Amino acid sequence: MEVMERAVELEREGHQIAHLEIGEPDFAAPPAALEACQRALAAGDTRYTDSRGLLALREAIAADAAERFDVRVDVGRVLVTSGTSPAMLLVFSLLLDPGDEVILGGPHYPCYPNFIRFAEGVPIAIPTRAEDHYRLDPVAVRRAITSRTRAIVVSSPANPTGAVQSEKTMRALTELAQQHGLALISDEIYDGLVYDGVAATSALQLGDDAFVLDGFSKRFAMTGFRLGWLIAPEWALRPLQTLQQNLFISVNAFVQRAGIAALRDDSSRLNEMREVYRQRRQRLVDGLRELGFEVPHLPQGAFYVLAGARRFGANSRRLAFELLERAHVGVTPGSDFGEYGEGMLRFCYAVSHETIELALERLAQLLPKLEREAAAREMEPRGDRDPPDGLDGKGTA
Amino acid sequence: MEVMERAVELEREGHQIAHLEIGEPDFAAPPAALEACQRALAAGDTRYTDSRGLLALREAIAADAAERFDVRVDVGRVLVTSGTSPAMLLVFSLLLDPGDEVILGGPHYPCYPNFIRFAEGVPIAIPTRAEDHYRLDPVAVRRAITSRTRAIVVSSPANPTGAVQSEKTMRALTELAQQHGLALISDEIYDGLVYDGVAATSALQLGDDAFVLDGFSKRFAMTGFRLGWLIAPEWALRPLQTLQQNLFISVNAFVQRAGIAALRDDSSRLNEMREVYRQRRQRLVDGLRELGFEVPHLPQGAFYVLAGARRFGANSRRLAFELLERAHVGVTPGSDFGEYGEGMLRFCYAVSHETIELALERLAQLLPKLEREAAAREMEPRGDRDPPDGLDGKGTA
Repeated sequence: MEVMERAVELEREGHQIAHLEIGEPDFAAPPAALEACQRALAAGDTRYTDSRGLLALREAIAADAAERFDVRVDVGRVLVTSGTSPAMLLVFSLLLDPGDEVILGGPHYPCYPNFIRFAEGVPIAIPTRAEDHYRLDPVAVRRAITSRTRAIVVSSPANPTGAVQSEKTMRALTELAQQHGLALISDEIYDGLVYDGVAATSALQLGDDAFVLDGFSKRFAMTGFRLGWLIAPEWALRPLQTLQQNLFISVNAFVQRAGIAALRDDSSRLNEMREVYRQRRQRLVDGLRELGFEVPHLPQGAFYVLAGARRFGANSRRLAFELLERAHVGVTPGSDFGEYGEGMLRFCYAVSHETIELALERLAQLLPKLEREAAAREMEPRGDRDPPDGLDGKGTA
Repeated sequence: MEVMERAVELEREGHQIAHLEIGEPDFAAPPAALEACQRALAAGDTRYTDSRGLLALREAIAADAAERFDVRVDVGRVLVTSGTSPAMLLVFSLLLDPGDEVILGGPHYPCYPNFIRFAEGVPIAIPTRAEDHYRLDPVAVRRAITSRTRAIVVSSPANPTGAVQSEKTMRALTELAQQHGLALISDEIYDGLVYDGVAATSALQLGDDAFVLDGFSKRFAMTGFRLGWLIAPEWALRPLQTLQQNLFISVNAFVQRAGIAALRDDSSRLNEMREVYRQRRQRLVDGLRELGFEVPHLPQGAFYVLAGARRFGANSRRLAFELLERAHVGVTPGSDFGEYGEGMLRFCYAVSHETIELALERLAQLLPKLEREAAAREMEPRGDRDPPDGLDGKGTA
């Protein structure tokens, strides 16, 4: 948030920023979704809906899951939400009592621990490593289980690592959850955005007990619509509905119509987007490696590259601000993704080829200087390594 | 929720239900809002926005408050939300630690205690009475303050009572909050829906320290858009923004454009709606009084009549189901509004004159029977007074 806000300030001062910090597709929303939304508005479809979501949308979601994963999903297990964020809020609020632990891999999406703590739970992050394709190790997960563990979170494909977990891993996590009476929470918001012939295994393919989060923001490039869903175990739907009713009443009526249209649309658009993302990924990873960033493997999904950057600065937050201030390139510090993200930077390639080229050129100018400065800092007494005034405390509440 | 769900079931079976249980305007959304939303969709305005909301909308909200209340509101105090429900979630989450107490009048909007408990707080309801126009007594509020009190909630005009608190009461509550270091949370979602020349005093007119909740659902008849706002003390904005960013990312982009258009629209529409509501209120209150319900004073705001119904049954939940099953009239049990709502029923007059007439006719057929049955039950041994099977446990999670 702070990097983005500073980037906006710099833009107001007249600077052109290469934004690789925002995890938002640059594709337009599907025309069929826009048209359906406009038709619904014209028809006055602007009232509260069933708090679970329109039946037609829940049916379309169940049908879409059936088609993608060759499984049967009962429509009674579907809850429509205003994006996956409220879905997470509902799930963690339902599952967690104060002090309950939730196991997740790190580096991880920054909001998971926020939602867990918001529900008075305790996030327990297990390291995953670039060298291992950021695979979540079921043995390490099992070791982390205590009497207070309530849930395991897995995301595949993942933000910020781009990792896709294997079917074997997904199966092992499903079994661990069953054996220990835990909830498996599977964030599948990047499903479909996979490359190199990979396919992500859905928790839906392995049983009916997982909480599966998904939505329209990434695969359909519909971020600003705020529309997502949750497929939950049957027993959880009634309490989740009650929570949704109490906290949010219902999801925007005409936006739900857009969702129905998007799901019924053909999938050729996704293939085209995927090919564009694939090309950008290759160019960005090649460029970053040339510049000296560490990217041992091509990330297989989502639209992020998490790159090792220690040679340019050990403090990723400080480094991200340096790139912004001195090269006008926006990136996300790895520390935003938890302790296991420190020393890295996240680059988003949901931007044009031109933006990627511009960013790489600018970084090529600055990075040799930063590398020399980082080496010099290593020689200095410890107290001088703190970020300069005005950077570290910027904008914190 | 249960009454509504049973009503939908009965409709599926072919019955025509007179819905007086739903708190939703039957007017269309403003044409200017619909058009602005469609224009934004056509322009591809479908991305994430600033987590505080679009600057133009926050400016329009500040200007609207200035115009309605003749006050200056800094745009830096405005946060756009997906309705007042998420705004409540943010405010109570920000303010409350586990065990903190929040004082509110009863009967009250059912979700206040839910939000308070969701944030691990404790709702402390103070009774208000129909005979006193449901006035909140500042002396009683002061007596309820303890070392754990953190906030006072006031709603004016109010759901379900229709009560409008006097300027004197609003001022006394503001002073109490200041003196005791409490937050004043003022729910003003029904502002503008007032009758008989009454005007509700806004907490904005009495200082800059209150949390004022408002939105587009009621006054603009835009329920399904899910758009509201919060005007907070300056110190609270940054932590509220961080919460919003973490929990919801941002509010729907094109819906915010509809909000700007609605606020810029002229106010003649509100005058027309108000006149229609005023006539419906009179007919409904006259009819209910003729039938034997107790309505000592005309409610001065919102679009609800909370009517004493003990002569037809002491258990309002049982009574509401009786009216639904035997007369096909949907109403809300007073017990939904807390312990001080028991023995009453809420009738919403945001419905057509025809629906009101139909409901009154049907009630006229059934109520004499219910009155005789209630009198007979009073003579029976206590064990027989419980609701019959299939009513009490219906649909609970």
